[in-house]
Amino acid sequence: MSSMSATPKKNLMLFSGRAHPELAEQVAKELDVTITPQSAYSFANGEIFVRFEESVRGCDAFVLQSHSAPINDAIMEHLIMVDALKRASAKRITVVMPFWGYARQDKKHRGREPISARLVADMFKVAGANRIMTVDLHTAQIQGFFDGPVDHLFALPVIADYVKKTYADRELAVVSPDSGRVRLAERWAETLGGTPLAFIHKTRDPKQPNEAKANRVVGEIEGRTCVVIDDMIDTGGTVVKTAEVLLKDGAAEVIVAATHGVLSGSAAERLAGSGAREVIFTDTLPIPDEKRFPRMTVLPIAPLLARAIHEVFDDGSVTSLFNGNA
Amino acid sequence: MSSMSATPKKNLMLFSGRAHPELAEQVAKELDVTITPQSAYSFANGEIFVRFEESVRGCDAFVLQSHSAPINDAIMEHLIMVDALKRASAKRITVVMPFWGYARQDKKHRGREPISARLVADMFKVAGANRIMTVDLHTAQIQGFFDGPVDHLFALPVIADYVKKTYADRELAVVSPDSGRVRLAERWAETLGGTPLAFIHKTRDPKQPNEAKANRVVGEIEGRTCVVIDDMIDTGGTVVKTAEVLLKDGAAEVIVAATHGVLSGSAAERLAGSGAREVIFTDTLPIPDEKRFPRMTVLPIAPLLARAIHEVFDDGSVTSLFNGNA
Amino acid sequence: MSSMSATPKKNLMLFSGRAHPELAEQVAKELDVTITPQSAYSFANGEIFVRFEESVRGCDAFVLQSHSAPINDAIMEHLIMVDALKRASAKRITVVMPFWGYARQDKKHRGREPISARLVADMFKVAGANRIMTVDLHTAQIQGFFDGPVDHLFALPVIADYVKKTYADRELAVVSPDSGRVRLAERWAETLGGTPLAFIHKTRDPKQPNEAKANRVVGEIEGRTCVVIDDMIDTGGTVVKTAEVLLKDGAAEVIVAATHGVLSGSAAERLAGSGAREVIFTDTLPIPDEKRFPRMTVLPIAPLLARAIHEVFDDGSVTSLFNGNA
Amino acid sequence: MSSMSATPKKNLMLFSGRAHPELAEQVAKELDVTITPQSAYSFANGEIFVRFEESVRGCDAFVLQSHSAPINDAIMEHLIMVDALKRASAKRITVVMPFWGYARQDKKHRGREPISARLVADMFKVAGANRIMTVDLHTAQIQGFFDGPVDHLFALPVIADYVKKTYADRELAVVSPDSGRVRLAERWAETLGGTPLAFIHKTRDPKQPNEAKANRVVGEIEGRTCVVIDDMIDTGGTVVKTAEVLLKDGAAEVIVAATHGVLSGSAAERLAGSGAREVIFTDTLPIPDEKRFPRMTVLPIAPLLARAIHEVFDDGSVTSLFNGNA
Amino acid sequence: MSSMSATPKKNLMLFSGRAHPELAEQVAKELDVTITPQSAYSFANGEIFVRFEESVRGCDAFVLQSHSAPINDAIMEHLIMVDALKRASAKRITVVMPFWGYARQDKKHRGREPISARLVADMFKVAGANRIMTVDLHTAQIQGFFDGPVDHLFALPVIADYVKKTYADRELAVVSPDSGRVRLAERWAETLGGTPLAFIHKTRDPKQPNEAKANRVVGEIEGRTCVVIDDMIDTGGTVVKTAEVLLKDGAAEVIVAATHGVLSGSAAERLAGSGAREVIFTDTLPIPDEKRFPRMTVLPIAPLLARAIHEVFDDGSVTSLFNGNA
Amino acid sequence: MSSMSATPKKNLMLFSGRAHPELAEQVAKELDVTITPQSAYSFANGEIFVRFEESVRGCDAFVLQSHSAPINDAIMEHLIMVDALKRASAKRITVVMPFWGYARQDKKHRGREPISARLVADMFKVAGANRIMTVDLHTAQIQGFFDGPVDHLFALPVIADYVKKTYADRELAVVSPDSGRVRLAERWAETLGGTPLAFIHKTRDPKQPNEAKANRVVGEIEGRTCVVIDDMIDTGGTVVKTAEVLLKDGAAEVIVAATHGVLSGSAAERLAGSGAREVIFTDTLPIPDEKRFPRMTVLPIAPLLARAIHEVFDDGSVTSLFNGNA
Repeated sequence: MSSMSATPKKNLMLFSGRAHPELAEQVAKELDVTITPQSAYSFANGEIFVRFEESVRGCDAFVLQSHSAPINDAIMEHLIMVDALKRASAKRITVVMPFWGYARQDKKHRGREPISARLVADMFKVAGANRIMTVDLHTAQIQGFFDGPVDHLFALPVIADYVKKTYADRELAVVSPDSGRVRLAERWAETLGGTPLAFIHKTRDPKQPNEAKANRVVGEIEGRTCVVIDDMIDTGGTVVKTAEVLLKDGAAEVIVAATHGVLSGSAAERLAGSGAREVIFTDTLPIPDEKRFPRMTVLPIAPLLARAIHEVFDDGSVTSLFNGNA
Repeated sequence: MSSMSATPKKNLMLFSGRAHPELAEQVAKELDVTITPQSAYSFANGEIFVRFEESVRGCDAFVLQSHSAPINDAIMEHLIMVDALKRASAKRITVVMPFWGYARQDKKHRGREPISARLVADMFKVAGANRIMTVDLHTAQIQGFFDGPVDHLFALPVIADYVKKTYADRELAVVSPDSGRVRLAERWAETLGGTPLAFIHKTRDPKQPNEAKANRVVGEIEGRTCVVIDDMIDTGGTVVKTAEVLLKDGAAEVIVAATHGVLSGSAAERLAGSGAREVIFTDTLPIPDEKRFPRMTVLPIAPLLARAIHEVFDDGSVTSLFNGNA
Repeated sequence: MSSMSATPKKNLMLFSGRAHPELAEQVAKELDVTITPQSAYSFANGEIFVRFEESVRGCDAFVLQSHSAPINDAIMEHLIMVDALKRASAKRITVVMPFWGYARQDKKHRGREPISARLVADMFKVAGANRIMTVDLHTAQIQGFFDGPVDHLFALPVIADYVKKTYADRELAVVSPDSGRVRLAERWAETLGGTPLAFIHKTRDPKQPNEAKANRVVGEIEGRTCVVIDDMIDTGGTVVKTAEVLLKDGAAEVIVAATHGVLSGSAAERLAGSGAREVIFTDTLPIPDEKRFPRMTVLPIAPLLARAIHEVFDDGSVTSLFNGNA
Repeated sequence: MSSMSATPKKNLMLFSGRAHPELAEQVAKELDVTITPQSAYSFANGEIFVRFEESVRGCDAFVLQSHSAPINDAIMEHLIMVDALKRASAKRITVVMPFWGYARQDKKHRGREPISARLVADMFKVAGANRIMTVDLHTAQIQGFFDGPVDHLFALPVIADYVKKTYADRELAVVSPDSGRVRLAERWAETLGGTPLAFIHKTRDPKQPNEAKANRVVGEIEGRTCVVIDDMIDTGGTVVKTAEVLLKDGAAEVIVAATHGVLSGSAAERLAGSGAREVIFTDTLPIPDEKRFPRMTVLPIAPLLARAIHEVFDDGSVTSLFNGNA
Repeated sequence: MSSMSATPKKNLMLFSGRAHPELAEQVAKELDVTITPQSAYSFANGEIFVRFEESVRGCDAFVLQSHSAPINDAIMEHLIMVDALKRASAKRITVVMPFWGYARQDKKHRGREPISARLVADMFKVAGANRIMTVDLHTAQIQGFFDGPVDHLFALPVIADYVKKTYADRELAVVSPDSGRVRLAERWAETLGGTPLAFIHKTRDPKQPNEAKANRVVGEIEGRTCVVIDDMIDTGGTVVKTAEVLLKDGAAEVIVAATHGVLSGSAAERLAGSGAREVIFTDTLPIPDEKRFPRMTVLPIAPLLARAIHEVFDDGSVTSLFNGNA
Repeated sequence: MSSMSATPKKNLMLFSGRAHPELAEQVAKELDVTITPQSAYSFANGEIFVRFEESVRGCDAFVLQSHSAPINDAIMEHLIMVDALKRASAKRITVVMPFWGYARQDKKHRGREPISARLVADMFKVAGANRIMTVDLHTAQIQGFFDGPVDHLFALPVIADYVKKTYADRELAVVSPDSGRVRLAERWAETLGGTPLAFIHKTRDPKQPNEAKANRVVGEIEGRTCVVIDDMIDTGGTVVKTAEVLLKDGAAEVIVAATHGVLSGSAAERLAGSGAREVIFTDTLPIPDEKRFPRMTVLPIAPLLARAIHEVFDDGSVTSLFNGNA
């Protein structure tokens, strides 16, 4: 015979950077696989080194890393893992980034700025990524920054479900903390069952140009349990001010809900000290114990990631996980 | 002597597709150049042919085409012109698309959709475009779809200026026709001097699931001259309904302002028949006489394009045209 | 266990644009599959939207679109389908273009022209096409414009077979309508069994420079049934004049045979009114009823396409369909 | 001051591989420059090394190499020179290949063949070539294989001019040696002033399938001075047989004219022994003394190359050298 | 006239990241330019933002950043600056990295490792870098990782010159601290005037496999002033052990010389405590005061960088700075 | 049913260029496959043509070619085979180059030189190679020149094993013929069990600048059997001089060992005439009978290549063949 034949197998392997090992462990458990063992360490000057302990040749690699602080280390480790997988002959490389680093810099807000979210996409492409899986992008257009398939998962149903159950007896209103998230608030309102909508409008009195901006609530929120929503909370400043304004304007109570708990600096403290009745996140980013406080709820994202990974591996449908919307 | 030396010159040449010749003429006039003569015709089966009548070798080419209906012909002609310029040794090719075709398809709204706005960017890249100049993108993130410099011009100051002057004595409010344009409305409100803000919230009564959505005004508009803003108006349906709701809810009068007058089908009629006091566009897209009506105002975009082209040619600053904001 | 294993399956899915649905239906029938359902529509300004109704993840996609008039719409829809498939994680995308749009612009005939056939190849590449299948290219070199595998199918055997059977008793001659198709005519002559060859030579009398060109038959055609061949017939002008000259020069009768019936404008009428005894096409392009006339024969191309698609899916041999010649 | 300014200069530098130094010398002389000195040698195992003796930073480099036998050495040296220029910061690199190696393999003649002419284009691209200048491609479509500007020069006017002057008193006919060059013959006929046309048709008697092919003259050549034309002559076999057939069929005399004298093996001898009255080439390829014979005329191509290089350097028009036809 | 002409100017602009501002200042001073003002800051989660305060359109940009610890932040800031310059229409972008981050990971030392030095090259390419300038690469092959010109500068002559002058009266020997730097040591020995050479050979006694490796001096060093050379010193461990072994084996004294003072952790202390008479670096990387000690000498690299930048801007010769060796 | 399903198969096919057919035959035998039949010939002017005789669609292609003299022909044939495989729809193309041509030109040794080893990598990439397999690169960094997986095999264990067995009773020392191979020598020394190390230091007496360089042995070799190692031996000059110096300095005997026997010109003679007791190569390159001499030993590389090919085909581990070191 002139050639050698075989039946191909496909083999899912899960890889995890060092940024958020608990999440990787949970995903692995949900999938009933183990994380591929690797050596990963940082040299004294910060250079990162990664080596896989097992053969990865021909595998369908899912490489999970949360882009949490220190974010440049997390991204670089992620990229180096992808490079190593490419050179070690992984068959397909899916970059799983529950939080897409630099997503906020998705356009030039003013002249001579970078578009760092595109740069991140291009860096993963050049490192060898075939596809990306991510959760709740800052703007959905970022999908288009990557030249390849992006599975964009939504945590909103998970969180909204929790809110619906927990506050079934309240009169809810959904509030966007600024004018740029009103569309997202509308999607929330629809998911919660047609609740009213409001947003905070930052204005500057044209007659007093040197005064700070004032925050004005646009929409009806009086007497309602206001769900302040956002894709991520970083310093918490905006959200805390929003809670204040809402309560001052007659809101019954305030709940804060966001997918990504970036929680930089003293954000957690600030949130704990705000008048919010509950603050809800998922664990796309690690939220260490010292940043947790009694009224914070952290919903697990691993089940969603695991289901999506399984669909991708199995040539199933990720869209179906969201009733056709992803 | 071993080599031959010379002092390089740079040479701006302006090219125009057949979609909106009046605009190209005006830009040429503003720049005090003539449009490079070319043969351009369509074969009977729709194939487009272009040939330049003069040498373009080494020129700094600005290729202007509005992506107006029939839009695929306009885009293809634009691409073919770029290909011909590349192969004829133009030194640098700037694609000037006052309206970026397919900008609305800037993300997958649901699963298994294209991201056509990125496809357009990639097609111009592969045809040979070095840079893009465009006006008021549907979302600013689209800039990041092109792998190269994008000069994103804003018509908003031009239109807002006109509104400010014309309606100096009115109590204005800025209204977004849906939840996705509230940020844009906020920028308008700030430009107009801190006017109030509102938007139309489409809701579905959860108890009557089969009922159509209702449109609810969120924000204070009573007794005010409402400026309904948008980046483009296509069929006009949304805007006409917005005007109705606003007037019903007590608006004093309604003005409509948008950069791009796509005006498909009977949009013009619909707008003429709405209660709007004035409808304002720029001429980024051709608005033929039969689509014009008495209360429509069309502001010229050529001066802005010409100034930006001149800055680009001259290594000046486009950002400076917008006080650092572009 | 550290990883999850599975046996991969491969899955042929057929997609069809809206340019030539009959052909797609026939190919589907030959393959015993159904066309993947999709939503496809054009917005009022001509923008095309496509969404697939079923998961396409991991499939081996064959995307069929005839580049018929209005050709730019057909091409753009084709590209958008490819983009959507890429982003929806199709495993492999084969673009099936029975007629390759812009194939005639395969070189710069004079300076400062585009090479649009290469542009088309590059646009499909950048949209996400892995491979192309096409029929009877205007020049075979176009294969080299695509950076990837091109399956170039030949309809010639199908048509020649029909001619051979139908005109078994005639003394045939093969005629190229101009000097550029003589090689093709020679291939026809060989397939038909060594018939004589002729071509039409357009000359200009050098002493009367302002006179129109004259058409001169080069080769022996007297008393013979002349088969005028071409890859495509667009306006029909050349072929009708060829028929005239041949009959005037003593041809017994004239038959016209071409793969692609572009048939722009009044081409069909013109052909019907020519003296040709029979005009033969395949249906690589749709030929609507109003363009058909009694002496026109349209041979189905679907069986050839289906066989080739099956070979590609099955890792068989397309070359073998043509005795090693494709 | 914050920056440092200067007026850029441009600087033409000419580089030559070792395949055809005489041609480079003549081009240099026509341009009044000297060839940039370099070290170039071949290691014992055939590896080629090149180093430029002068700084090439910022220059407009024209790199001339004829792809003559041993052709793979010539091409590789050409590529290595381009790589070295790219890495040494040449500003623009124009590859001048009077004869484009592997141009005959411009399509898959049968299945599972390479398209080597495209491969050559891609290799120069990846090495760093910005543009290509070449003479009389085997097929004009090859221009489209390169992703960038190709200046395609025509030697035909030069040779035709010579023929016209030398044989002003003869009744000429132009003859294509096979069915694939009839278009070229027609262009010749037009240039010579509307002479008749013929070609050689290779047929196989279908009743005697094992017999060799017969060569049949199609067209009127009796009593005429036949100019047998081609883009290149390699082994000379076809052309010699063509001459025989023509003379046998009543041609008064035969002249052979081609741009590229590949002249492999004993081609020169064969041509010398044919009945051709004159054999005309240009020196795009080196024709060593031992391959020359009394009735061979070699016309210099350097003036054409030098003029074209000058136009490219000067942002002039190459098309204008051919009355708009290049 | 149909077009607008102008004489191009070229304009050097210098940019500096935040990793090593002193070096950038010195380079600016040597060039007599000022560093382009920019806003650069890090968000709380580590995301870096950069915006240039002046127009950079059309400039010849030199972007200087030392890849010092925390190295991933330094690299990411460098990349983001390049992205911003590309999008702001800089004409040419030269990345100046005095120390190329991750240069030590220039190959897979064992299976399933990344080649991070190539990844760094690719990331700068995709961000928009046209060229790279760097000093004393860990291995010269790294130049080939970048697809474009790399100006590789040598600090060796600077340091060797200093050593020669300072130790003119000593009997020197050059010592490589391991078997991989012997070639570099040989280059040093030649520059110092033909001094003897030695290296440290790490061996493991095959009969005592569990014993640690022993360090053996190979070469004559007795009674000599040993110059231990390396491209960089990171933790200092190897070099300190080398000094010990040399002194034990009879060296008169030990001098340590390296281009890049990475000096991670307690490297400086360790070096200070070694028996070395003098430790010499350049300031390609910042060496803060607390890491400096009396017997440490830091030679300025700015003059070399400035001269090279000037040559690049001026289309001069960088090679000439090193007598033809760069 | 809407789609057609099948179970994919994978199919190893082995291809061989004409440079070293014996090696391909041995690899085929080890793998128990036959080499895919092909037509391959060179035209008179050196152009190479290749056509595969069997369908290669969907196969896992391993294309073996040794880059032996005439090396440019070998490389071009290799590239053309890859191009043909790509266009004929091979599923994956692994380029097997036991000796990587131009590996010595892996950096710019001085200014204005090419980096030809990178050029070779890029040419294979652009031709369509997915992966490369090679043996004992001149420097391991060359792996990083290819944008994709490189399986870098080591022949050292094979040769060292032979040396160990054959010279079990000798006191060995490993000698690097120059300062650049000391690291390799150290790896040899470790493999052989901790033998001493030496290298040849070329010095120039600074007081007699016009004198030739002298070769000095650095390290202890007296009375020992010296194994002079290198990755390749080309002209043999260095190695022969090394043997002389070693014997003069008191070596008991000299053995020469290298992976690649380039053996240009009279290298074989020179080696035969040196005092070396044995000269050992592998057959990565063909060593014709006339270059063999009694004391030359050629170890077969086919078993190693075949095992590695099998691991690649089977998604096994190549690294495991070298105890984790590849």
